[in-house]
Amino acid sequence: MKRILNIETKKYLGKKVKVCGWVNSLRHHGGIVFLDLRDHSGILQLVSTPDLAKDVKEEYVLEVEGQIQKRPIKMVNPELETGEIELRAERMKILAEAATSPFDLKDLKVSLPVLLDWRPLTLRNKKIGTIFKIQEEVISSFRKIMKDLGFFEFQAPTIVPVATEGGAEVFHLDYFNYDAYLAQSPQLYKQIMLGAFERVFTVTKAYRAEPSVTTRHLTEYISLDVEMSFIDSWKELMENCEIIIRNIFSDLERNCDKELKIFGATLPKLGEKIPRLKMREAQEIIFKRTGKNHRKEPDLEPEDEKEICDFAKEKYSSELIFITHYSTKKRPFYTFADPEDPDYTLSFDLLCRGLEIVTGGQRIHDYKMLLKNIKKWGNKPKDFKFYLQAFKYGMPPEGGFAIGAERLVKQILNLENVREASLFPRDMERIDQRLSILHPKKTTTLPPPSRRRRAPKRNAKK
Amino acid sequence: MKRILNIETKKYLGKKVKVCGWVNSLRHHGGIVFLDLRDHSGILQLVSTPDLAKDVKEEYVLEVEGQIQKRPIKMVNPELETGEIELRAERMKILAEAATSPFDLKDLKVSLPVLLDWRPLTLRNKKIGTIFKIQEEVISSFRKIMKDLGFFEFQAPTIVPVATEGGAEVFHLDYFNYDAYLAQSPQLYKQIMLGAFERVFTVTKAYRAEPSVTTRHLTEYISLDVEMSFIDSWKELMENCEIIIRNIFSDLERNCDKELKIFGATLPKLGEKIPRLKMREAQEIIFKRTGKNHRKEPDLEPEDEKEICDFAKEKYSSELIFITHYSTKKRPFYTFADPEDPDYTLSFDLLCRGLEIVTGGQRIHDYKMLLKNIKKWGNKPKDFKFYLQAFKYGMPPEGGFAIGAERLVKQILNLENVREASLFPRDMERIDQRLSILHPKKTTTLPPPSRRRRAPKRNAKK
Repeated sequence: MKRILNIETKKYLGKKVKVCGWVNSLRHHGGIVFLDLRDHSGILQLVSTPDLAKDVKEEYVLEVEGQIQKRPIKMVNPELETGEIELRAERMKILAEAATSPFDLKDLKVSLPVLLDWRPLTLRNKKIGTIFKIQEEVISSFRKIMKDLGFFEFQAPTIVPVATEGGAEVFHLDYFNYDAYLAQSPQLYKQIMLGAFERVFTVTKAYRAEPSVTTRHLTEYISLDVEMSFIDSWKELMENCEIIIRNIFSDLERNCDKELKIFGATLPKLGEKIPRLKMREAQEIIFKRTGKNHRKEPDLEPEDEKEICDFAKEKYSSELIFITHYSTKKRPFYTFADPEDPDYTLSFDLLCRGLEIVTGGQRIHDYKMLLKNIKKWGNKPKDFKFYLQAFKYGMPPEGGFAIGAERLVKQILNLENVREASLFPRDMERIDQRLSILHPKKTTTLPPPSRRRRAPKRNAKK
Repeated sequence: MKRILNIETKKYLGKKVKVCGWVNSLRHHGGIVFLDLRDHSGILQLVSTPDLAKDVKEEYVLEVEGQIQKRPIKMVNPELETGEIELRAERMKILAEAATSPFDLKDLKVSLPVLLDWRPLTLRNKKIGTIFKIQEEVISSFRKIMKDLGFFEFQAPTIVPVATEGGAEVFHLDYFNYDAYLAQSPQLYKQIMLGAFERVFTVTKAYRAEPSVTTRHLTEYISLDVEMSFIDSWKELMENCEIIIRNIFSDLERNCDKELKIFGATLPKLGEKIPRLKMREAQEIIFKRTGKNHRKEPDLEPEDEKEICDFAKEKYSSELIFITHYSTKKRPFYTFADPEDPDYTLSFDLLCRGLEIVTGGQRIHDYKMLLKNIKKWGNKPKDFKFYLQAFKYGMPPEGGFAIGAERLVKQILNLENVREASLFPRDMERIDQRLSILHPKKTTTLPPPSRRRRAPKRNAKK
């Protein structure tokens, strides 16, 4: 007999079927045993004799054959999709045994470190699993709208020969006795791709050796990256970004209503158009609202991002806001300076509910200007020779942006920590398990200087 | 005026339009200049006065306005989609200049190292760009069929705490003064995912520190990974694999006819059903055909794979063949041994036109057996504690496989080298550019032993 999913049993009333899954719970009730069998489609109640179920415990994996019947009226469970039926078990085979879970998987109340230490097990909790159904939908929706907009999807490399974004937060790799790094972003490659494909996107991993533990940083994260050429103005980038975000939200609304309800989450409000403010205007507003004078700062602090989002919600009824014109010295070498005020760039961040979820901007497409900036930022043109080819042989005006997938999911579901939105989050203290438990510390504290390539100068990203 | 794509101009006969692109070629013809303008949709012929085009050279980036008109009959080019029309240029703006290409981009005749050294430029060649349209379609088709089959897509991590597949071919990472590695495959994570999602897939990067330069190895490659639980038999894995491969081929046939023609490529023949042979049977056949006695070898050599594919084509009219029951000692610790003959495993490779493109098999799902094997393979159970949770708390019978995306594209297009099917191929000598040019050799030859974690024992994968 072919196994069917729990959700499909509704169509088999009075028929004999085979189902498989994990024992979600087990209740003895006089001469009857009730088992909730869980598979990825949902829960099905099994009714069994005590003898048939005598060796079974919670989380055991079963293969069960039996007849689908209506539940007695008073036993109907309106919260289950299969709540009006049950399976009367005739044959029960244990496919795998299970140790006793250290916590109640159905009503999970554990701290974040425990949640993550026990990820393979805690992922079986319905609410936790739901986070990653939302993540899957976000990525799938992003991909679909990009293809609809005529963008070409490519696979970006992650082992790179130079530290592209600058800063110290770059992972070094032993590469056959040469120096290599993990890509901080697919930036240089998406620009290279434009020369042949004009409009491109990639779903890729980006890596930051972030030396602090915050609620918003991962050392390995999913970057939804977009780059487009033949732009008339850098504002087209924000327009496209807004189309994508709106599209992701409407796909979630259509396809993940049930999942959002589990979190009591409502999608962020956007209003008619996402408001836009220059960074300096934002600093001015923050000063007026709070008295905190950050008007000389070259960037917004996390508390500033929260404050300006509060402002946008009050003033524009929007939970998202574009902050534009970041300071030139806080952005990478390839960022296009505002011709009217070269201390600031034609760049933007998109903030959502107090957190940056997108960064983007126009790029320098002129070969000579780019070459000049590479030097100005303290880099060697030799290291960027490959990249520079794309510009030396003709590059149109262009720009792009990157959406942090885990951050976006965090903000949609109002999670407290970005780690909750990452299946297997990595940070300076953890790869799967806490590193201090898994590995002894190395004896050397840092590799000798000869083994470390000097990273290009740039201030650390917040 | 809004820019339209070259391909769209066909609908604007007699109208004024704006187009953008690169100058593919330029021909002076008496008092007229003909320019072929290239954008990602195709080529459009521009007709200009010498004065208007006086500063323009090949690969310059232009924005051009003018009227779409019919070409004179004798000027019609049936090989172009816009071959019956042309644009009479009225305004021409140079968006970017371009240096002179060191080779003819339209008729590219360069060696592989030159092709790759100049990738940003050579990617503009139509035939070269086509390889990656095929790659995009292969990945997109894989994703679609997996979703149709009810598999959940997840994002696998690539920084890992232990060398999962064993062998020496693992990249070591400086991770905040701890040891870490680049994932040789998403294997352990896709198995972990089964406990919550039952049937999963991922499109991810896998890394092998392959210390030799061959035509079939990359150090970073795209792995199309599948894992499924509640299997009745390991043969279900091959059945699903065949469905996926057939589906990819039929999508290519439907959507990439033009692209395949550029390569003169026909899709590999499959016949009614992909034939299956045990490794030992294959060795026997090879011995009979060639006299080469590899019957005691624990694995097939590249020349064996070619020979057995020749055999399958002659005997079964199939250019693909499954080879099954590889030797236990040549497979990783998690591979399920054949209960009838434990020296061999319930595993398979799928060969296509002489090259392995898929590897898979049933996995050990029993916690105690897995624990035993981890020790037997010379690993520490402590290092696999996180992974083992998934099994300790109940795992159904399961298995899976991985398709190498670049290898599949290479075989479909009959490319000579897998590097041609990778946008930015990495090998021991190259990351974008040849490393010997970019970086000086380090002074130390190898990191001191204290910095290198001993990799688990397993023979090197071919």
